Amino acid sequence: MDVFIEPIGKLINEFSKLPGVGKKTAQRYAYKIIGMSDAEAKTFAESILSCKRKVRYCKVCGNFTEEEVCAICKTRDGSAICVVKEPKDVIAMEKLHEFKGVYHVLHGVISPMDGIGPNDIRIKELLARVSDGTVQEVIMATNPDVEGEATAMYIAKILKPLGVKVTRLAHGIPIGSELEYTDEVTLSRALSERKLI
Amino acid sequence: MDVFIEPIGKLINEFSKLPGVGKKTAQRYAYKIIGMSDAEAKTFAESILSCKRKVRYCKVCGNFTEEEVCAICKTRDGSAICVVKEPKDVIAMEKLHEFKGVYHVLHGVISPMDGIGPNDIRIKELLARVSDGTVQEVIMATNPDVEGEATAMYIAKILKPLGVKVTRLAHGIPIGSELEYTDEVTLSRALSERKLI
Repeated sequence: MDVFIEPIGKLINEFSKLPGVGKKTAQRYAYKIIGMSDAEAKTFAESILSCKRKVRYCKVCGNFTEEEVCAICKTRDGSAICVVKEPKDVIAMEKLHEFKGVYHVLHGVISPMDGIGPNDIRIKELLARVSDGTVQEVIMATNPDVEGEATAMYIAKILKPLGVKVTRLAHGIPIGSELEYTDEVTLSRALSERKLI
Repeated sequence: MDVFIEPIGKLINEFSKLPGVGKKTAQRYAYKIIGMSDAEAKTFAESILSCKRKVRYCKVCGNFTEEEVCAICKTRDGSAICVVKEPKDVIAMEKLHEFKGVYHVLHGVISPMDGIGPNDIRIKELLARVSDGTVQEVIMATNPDVEGEATAMYIAKILKPLGVKVTRLAHGIPIGSELEYTDEVTLSRALSERKLI
């Protein structure tokens, strides 16, 4: 838009690349940057560069790390592996402070529609980890959507012959929600997986 | 939060400083940065620095500019000055493509509650511009809130003795809205400022 001078227009354009950010929001962010002190703006810019430079993937689990092997893989009990789609799912699990095992990040799920097959995600690496005999349980924590379910089933099928226990996170009605507003698929799943009390 | 490694935590912290951005949104933005190519992240960081470095205030009107005097002040008819609170209000007016005059950015409004008096905003500079005799009309376009109204009234009072026409943007029911949902203050204003048709 020609109403903005070039450096502001450029910055608005950059902010618009962030997820869920439109022109108006990007504009507010740009004004905030202009209102910052030089030092603050420098810190902001440097944290972007430093994050990009320092963060890489753990060569064992595929999670974000600053070193070759992440802190979780280095220090935690390796007998249980929780398999997730993306690094951000590790964060979600870690916030629980309940799971004491390690992770395996697939970096995607099997999705024939998008041309993503079993060889395009980190399944080989998972098999290699399970093959060494120390793993007792693999918890499938991919999302409860079509691709996540299919991926979990696929991985379970190839892991079971190795004699490892494969489990899946429970699905059902979220705690605190109401039956009336629960979608039909979830409700049907909750019914079919009902438990004895 | 200790669930994030340091460079990601820092970047999330920086993004949280943007207006309306909470931890969750900042996290999504940080993941987006990590997913960018090195070149893209560099462009992003540089646009922040370059915006901060290049943008300054026009010494005539106080709007954002890259040079000493902004393009609007340099090229447009100076007989009408539109007085606004902030540079972003200039953008709002410019998007209309209707006003062909120049602007004067106050960089604030009189607000005794916040300790901001007439000398803390760019009123002196406005008086100086009006005093040279070329200005025929000053359009007060401060926001229609208590401080904006008070500032408009204050400036009108000191400008009138100089023989200049001082006007204010019209207030009333927004086009396309419904009477039923118009707040009482706006409706009352629309009634008292009714016009003959």
